Amino acid sequence: MTTKGSQSTTKAKSKQTAGQLPLRVAILGFGTVGQSVARIIVERTDLAESLQLTHIFNRNVSRKRVDWTPESVVWTEKIEEVLAASPDVIVETVGGVKGTYEWVQQALSQGASVVTANKLLMAAHAPELISLASVHGSQIRFEAAVAGGVPIIDGIRFGLAGDQLSRVVGILNGTCNFILSRMTSTESMSAVLEEAQRLGYAEADPSSDIDGHDAAAKLVLLAGVSFRRHLKASVVPTMSIRRIDNVDCLYASRLGRTIRQLSIVESMGNGHLQAFVGPVLVPQESSFALNKGAQNFVMVVGRYGGAKSFSGEGAGGNPTATAVVSDLVALTKEERNADTFDGAWLPGTLAPPPLRSYYLRFVVNDQSGILASITTSLARYGINVDAVLQEPGFPKDRLPFVVTVEPCEDTALEEAMRVIEREDFHAEVPLVMPLLHGSNDALAV
Amino acid sequence: MTTKGSQSTTKAKSKQTAGQLPLRVAILGFGTVGQSVARIIVERTDLAESLQLTHIFNRNVSRKRVDWTPESVVWTEKIEEVLAASPDVIVETVGGVKGTYEWVQQALSQGASVVTANKLLMAAHAPELISLASVHGSQIRFEAAVAGGVPIIDGIRFGLAGDQLSRVVGILNGTCNFILSRMTSTESMSAVLEEAQRLGYAEADPSSDIDGHDAAAKLVLLAGVSFRRHLKASVVPTMSIRRIDNVDCLYASRLGRTIRQLSIVESMGNGHLQAFVGPVLVPQESSFALNKGAQNFVMVVGRYGGAKSFSGEGAGGNPTATAVVSDLVALTKEERNADTFDGAWLPGTLAPPPLRSYYLRFVVNDQSGILASITTSLARYGINVDAVLQEPGFPKDRLPFVVTVEPCEDTALEEAMRVIEREDFHAEVPLVMPLLHGSNDALAV
Repeated sequence: MTTKGSQSTTKAKSKQTAGQLPLRVAILGFGTVGQSVARIIVERTDLAESLQLTHIFNRNVSRKRVDWTPESVVWTEKIEEVLAASPDVIVETVGGVKGTYEWVQQALSQGASVVTANKLLMAAHAPELISLASVHGSQIRFEAAVAGGVPIIDGIRFGLAGDQLSRVVGILNGTCNFILSRMTSTESMSAVLEEAQRLGYAEADPSSDIDGHDAAAKLVLLAGVSFRRHLKASVVPTMSIRRIDNVDCLYASRLGRTIRQLSIVESMGNGHLQAFVGPVLVPQESSFALNKGAQNFVMVVGRYGGAKSFSGEGAGGNPTATAVVSDLVALTKEERNADTFDGAWLPGTLAPPPLRSYYLRFVVNDQSGILASITTSLARYGINVDAVLQEPGFPKDRLPFVVTVEPCEDTALEEAMRVIEREDFHAEVPLVMPLLHGSNDALAV
Repeated sequence: MTTKGSQSTTKAKSKQTAGQLPLRVAILGFGTVGQSVARIIVERTDLAESLQLTHIFNRNVSRKRVDWTPESVVWTEKIEEVLAASPDVIVETVGGVKGTYEWVQQALSQGASVVTANKLLMAAHAPELISLASVHGSQIRFEAAVAGGVPIIDGIRFGLAGDQLSRVVGILNGTCNFILSRMTSTESMSAVLEEAQRLGYAEADPSSDIDGHDAAAKLVLLAGVSFRRHLKASVVPTMSIRRIDNVDCLYASRLGRTIRQLSIVESMGNGHLQAFVGPVLVPQESSFALNKGAQNFVMVVGRYGGAKSFSGEGAGGNPTATAVVSDLVALTKEERNADTFDGAWLPGTLAPPPLRSYYLRFVVNDQSGILASITTSLARYGINVDAVLQEPGFPKDRLPFVVTVEPCEDTALEEAMRVIEREDFHAEVPLVMPLLHGSNDALAV
């Protein structure tokens, strides 16, 4: 909090510190992102007075050595050597929780600030690391951990601080968006996934992306900065996009919709949060549908200001590195003190989902009475059918058709589906996906 | 700049100031935005400890009085009374340059910070007011002056500080975007404008919107925060959307494009800036074309991170007020000192536009040899025709047709058009609009 008195203090301080040394930066992990961070620091001469690269840490560091960093940089594979040099900031781009967790703790404990691109570490330990930083007068920043170079964390914490946020809906995983925006009624997921892997948008093992765990970790961080509540990533309901089939693209388009992996969190007050990660049918004219390829897109809805959107490249060395460097630049300025600004992240509680419409896709071995059987079971649980779609041209023994239902409780639908799944006419386990109405800020799960 | 030493100082300071009084806020101008700002401050109890509304200033203030502000608020029509009370922050939502300029100068000079929604004031005087604030240890912030509640200034100054920005392209005027996204080959501009006025998206006299002056002022501010260079709004080349006709919607769609009022600024280095505000043909699949209604949309392109986009409501009391309150919240925190962060805005120089493709629309009294005459004149100035479009069904004496040309110098095109305009076959002065290729970040003028 600033009064006129403290403003003068600040001014005096900024004048005094203007002559001081640059922030000494140690980079942990010299992979794609770490290298891009170093490259930007070296190339941006306008930052030379405020940032000084002092250490590069990597396992087997000798094979990582490049010729374009300053000669003064210490290359090391000993974390102790880095920490003993008392850097002002640790840039952590190693990834994973093992190892990094201890290093970040140690750095914060000795008063260094930390800038990390590590969504898993932060999703697991953000509240504790933020508190630790606060106790030691340092900061932990993680703009790069969500949506690459899209400044969504800064946008929520500062740019939208004047609003009261209620909901965040994002396309946070570029791999899933690439797959879902390329898939058509004839172009299969496996073909598109192969293309994504060839283009470097998908990993050799894309499970974490496709099954929603990557996006869930990012959603935990967005919930934290938006509502100062911490959900464990493991409690966020996730649904894989694996089972999306060409026929779903066909039926989605018949419904005026398309499929996107969305990550949604909504504050219900008192630390209760609705959250979901998975494939959702969205209106074709919504901003989510229009977001194609590997782009990330995040919409933040506030009580006063309505919906604001942020988009751009969500991955890649350079875009992610710009987010890291933005955090470094922020540390060189009058600080935005994490503890006074945001306050601690209290534990959040997962709230049950709202009433939602659903898309139910069945593949059956055709016989008479199937639709009657399904709709009867749905009715028994108080669920109203909205539409039934059955396109011609499929084999009778693997006949796909779709039932959409009006907004209902997910527990009721789950019970109805358990009954329906017991029937012997299925050629495949039914697929259940939320279906969103309205567009953009009206869009809610 | 922060070192470990100054971090400890900061921590001590934040602890010390945590017990201090809230920022005392005086609102100048109690119109739509001023009222929304007061409403948010009053309603958001989480801000009660950091922001205190002390004064509301307005001409004939008695007719403005409401019953939902704290009783302690002083209502006044005397600016001297406000300034004599030494508020910590002045919120200026009066608008215009006359009067506000002196008030803001006085406030800054006595050490108060200023938060303003006033694009005209800032476009005219930003460099001087930023310096004045810096000298007196205060701040001037103006998030609300561009794109309403979309946190684009924060995004550029902080979220994208890690990148080196090269270009900003925005849809900055909701009125023009509403008109251009509603107009079709049959729906006229006047009908759509009337609808916009009825919905409150357009003013009774929409000249400043339609002729590009509103957007030019905002573009000057975006250029300032992006490149720390100041262009005078009067030197930004603006083109009105007034002359866009239904037939242009038809021909744009034949070209796979649609028309948007874009505001573009690109840094050419050394303070040279290309800038333009006016109607442009953009590809139908571009994000600019997909931005419809009164929404604002701003794309920022960086050397390292590529394109990032920000969008949302660009006007209205509440969205604009959230931007004001975000600025107020920022002032209550460890400050981001404007002078140490951004540095001064040096004078910028307008650079000539790049080679651009153009759309030339003629309306002629048909006779033989017209196309030959036009293309001959273009050829004489080295300008190559890309396409000729002439739709059937128009009267011979007011026959509209379109010529598009390959990228050329605007001065060459101007000279060619001067020759062409002298011909006697015109039923209307020809319309010249830039035509952009590529999409999104490739899109440049």
